[in-house]
Amino acid sequence: MGRPRTPLLDRDRITTTALALIDEKGDFSVPQIAKRLGAQTGSVYHHVDGRDGIVELLRERVSEAIDTSTLDPRHPWDASLSAWARSYRAAFAAHPKVIPLLMTSPVRAPRVLEQYELAVTLLIGAGFALPDVMPVIVALENLVLGSALDLAAPEAMWELPDETSTPALARALDAAPQGRTDSAFELALTGFLAHARTML
Amino acid sequence: MGRPRTPLLDRDRITTTALALIDEKGDFSVPQIAKRLGAQTGSVYHHVDGRDGIVELLRERVSEAIDTSTLDPRHPWDASLSAWARSYRAAFAAHPKVIPLLMTSPVRAPRVLEQYELAVTLLIGAGFALPDVMPVIVALENLVLGSALDLAAPEAMWELPDETSTPALARALDAAPQGRTDSAFELALTGFLAHARTML
Repeated sequence: MGRPRTPLLDRDRITTTALALIDEKGDFSVPQIAKRLGAQTGSVYHHVDGRDGIVELLRERVSEAIDTSTLDPRHPWDASLSAWARSYRAAFAAHPKVIPLLMTSPVRAPRVLEQYELAVTLLIGAGFALPDVMPVIVALENLVLGSALDLAAPEAMWELPDETSTPALARALDAAPQGRTDSAFELALTGFLAHARTML
Repeated sequence: MGRPRTPLLDRDRITTTALALIDEKGDFSVPQIAKRLGAQTGSVYHHVDGRDGIVELLRERVSEAIDTSTLDPRHPWDASLSAWARSYRAAFAAHPKVIPLLMTSPVRAPRVLEQYELAVTLLIGAGFALPDVMPVIVALENLVLGSALDLAAPEAMWELPDETSTPALARALDAAPQGRTDSAFELALTGFLAHARTML
């Protein structure tokens, strides 16, 4: 028998499989990836820089969907940052279970670091004091990623057994706008940008 | 042999085991819980209302650590809401991997619904329009839970291969304050509260 012309293993297929495992189960392991791809665990390690290497491939994969052309220093910084936040939120809302994994391991992926470089350059250009730049970016990321998780939640998030035990909550839910998640994100983003403007 | 005096299974032990599995692996299954407790899967189902019931027990367990005395309508609403947000953040930062699970399944746990009732009552009492109440609470939760995930991240979150490929990021990281996560949370919370005040 000849060898298959399509290799069983490459970084793309390993990344795709890891992401599918996370979407299903909330986590991945290298032996699970190997099993799905019909390969030996050791062969997977031959293609990637360990488990941490796979995490960085996942970071690149998910971040590819973020439109970095939004971070254009020729546009007003607040419009640029808003557009980046919206695109960032949509990219991660497609894979909510990967968020805790990526948020709790250090960023090493070159293409993702380049995206931070663009965001930092935009804020420095806008006149933010250097010590404020990372807190501004991290605050925005926290609200973006919190909201990305919420985008993956059911629209009917509170199920009251009856309306008598929590009557104020029942009234507030009845009065809440359609698209609770988007309303909340816009509210948080507006507040964030207004406060960031006062820092200039 | 007599039966053991301590039952192998009860809701508390099932909840503790589910939370330990999530802390380790990012998810749980009923068979995994049964295996850890040396019981049959069917016996676990005898104690809880299915997998969803376990999720609600987890929600109650994690939310127990939130200090709800902060939601006291006799204090200024913004101070109350800030104190609640800080306590909420700390409670969930202890179990970051449970956040996606709880954020993407409907809230049914009575004691957690009571906590929302207190928050809604506080905001209605403060004068928020009824349609704004849930978006305000959800926006606050999104930034709290995004920041709780960030609290579980390493302090050195960006690892640059060298300082020449992303020089602006390198400068911003050098200038960033110690306790990036707390600075970012305070910034986001200040912005949120300032914007919420304008809604009154």
